[in-house]
Amino acid sequence: MRTPAENAQLALLLEVTATPKPGNVDRDREYPDLRFEHFMTGAVGASEGLRMAAAGEPIGESFERAVDGMADQRGGNTQFGALLLLVPLVRASGTGELTPEYAAEVVGETTVADAAGFYRAFEHVDVGISDPPDEMKALDVRRGADAIPELEARELTLEDVLAASVERDGVAREWVSRFSRSFEIAERITSGEGSVPDRAARAFLEALASEPDTFVAKRHDEATARGVTEAARAALRGDADPDALAEELVDAGVNPGTTADLVAAGLFIALEDGLTV
Amino acid sequence: MRTPAENAQLALLLEVTATPKPGNVDRDREYPDLRFEHFMTGAVGASEGLRMAAAGEPIGESFERAVDGMADQRGGNTQFGALLLLVPLVRASGTGELTPEYAAEVVGETTVADAAGFYRAFEHVDVGISDPPDEMKALDVRRGADAIPELEARELTLEDVLAASVERDGVAREWVSRFSRSFEIAERITSGEGSVPDRAARAFLEALASEPDTFVAKRHDEATARGVTEAARAALRGDADPDALAEELVDAGVNPGTTADLVAAGLFIALEDGLTV
Repeated sequence: MRTPAENAQLALLLEVTATPKPGNVDRDREYPDLRFEHFMTGAVGASEGLRMAAAGEPIGESFERAVDGMADQRGGNTQFGALLLLVPLVRASGTGELTPEYAAEVVGETTVADAAGFYRAFEHVDVGISDPPDEMKALDVRRGADAIPELEARELTLEDVLAASVERDGVAREWVSRFSRSFEIAERITSGEGSVPDRAARAFLEALASEPDTFVAKRHDEATARGVTEAARAALRGDADPDALAEELVDAGVNPGTTADLVAAGLFIALEDGLTV
Repeated sequence: MRTPAENAQLALLLEVTATPKPGNVDRDREYPDLRFEHFMTGAVGASEGLRMAAAGEPIGESFERAVDGMADQRGGNTQFGALLLLVPLVRASGTGELTPEYAAEVVGETTVADAAGFYRAFEHVDVGISDPPDEMKALDVRRGADAIPELEARELTLEDVLAASVERDGVAREWVSRFSRSFEIAERITSGEGSVPDRAARAFLEALASEPDTFVAKRHDEATARGVTEAARAALRGDADPDALAEELVDAGVNPGTTADLVAAGLFIALEDGLTV
């Protein structure tokens, strides 16, 4: 019987194993400087932070510890977004039950100290981030711990901080919407057919087809993100080969990382719900 | 900074990632019922037992716990032999230092209770085992816990039990020879070139070429094991393509599992020694 922290780690490993996941590192594809083994190593390093979350330690501290451990490899940011989804979900599972309602409670109970932990996490790894809106400049996450006095002055909790990014960030959206897409992906994985990685790859393609990936929108632009969504739809309809799309996106360096994060969260929920591998 | 238990888990993950590893499951090859994700899941499940070993809990109990956790997936025995190497090495690293001398001390200090834990581990998973010699019939590991009274009557420690299998089992040989091949493989991985999985794949081929794999000898016969060694030598000389050999052995169901176990142990030693991924 695996613990919630172990299932979270397994979710990270299964997510990167699933192939094809167009644009992302998977069992068959990688980037020269961001390779499959960096994700393995990131998943191992994150384990202590995930255990902290399951034990009910503060969310911000658990997240910072998970990111710090994750970053102990040469690939850089492998699973920052996935951990930002997993930490509250693991805490929900470890301290109560893994339901959208209780996960929302966990989010609602975050504090200013949790927000500070989140900011500190940015000091451990470079995360692809776009410029914040003007009113949030003092709270640019790239300031790391330097932004903490401002957080405290404004009394912003981690929920508040993420709520401010809802427009631009698919992970933040999950935080304020009861992790609705994560639970939906879990459902699709549970009811899917074939091996767990095959189900996860299918769920990835479906999620990519359903909404533009916010990481692609940030790194490139909205049009690119919409183009990827269209391409994923074509692949789902059978009008394009998912493997060919995977090659094309990796060659273009277009990496729908937020969708991958959602799949990791969905895998975790499905595993906690009894999915066997 | 990863703990010894985390590095052991990472070693298991990197071992199965490394490709080509002729005949074994790796990132590019698998068997219909023994797939890549079963190894991921086995590595996650083993983590609690590995932590117990690092904390100085009894070797037999730690090993049994690791195997029990490993077995929580549908592939069956993924990493029994690798864990039998890793548990004493993790304990050495966690409680003293990871040297051949101290690892030998750890082995020398095993008890009859440790042997009992080892036998119990066989109740959690089917392990490919050949018939024991006549004088060991009462101690056939397939008897599981039923053999424990006999172990106790003969006052056999885990070291004694493994010493009795030295002829037929390359993992047992490591236990009584200061883990010499594991340390040698670590050396090769550390001084190798390229990514860690590439180094591990190379070390696997070299190890396969240097001694017949005892798992192949047990499952098939000595001649098959020698044939695989010859084929690995040809691949190292450049007279054969390692990828083609990998295809051929997987198609024939010839799986040099003991050599893979040794590579996992070598990866662990190299990681503890500071190898970065």
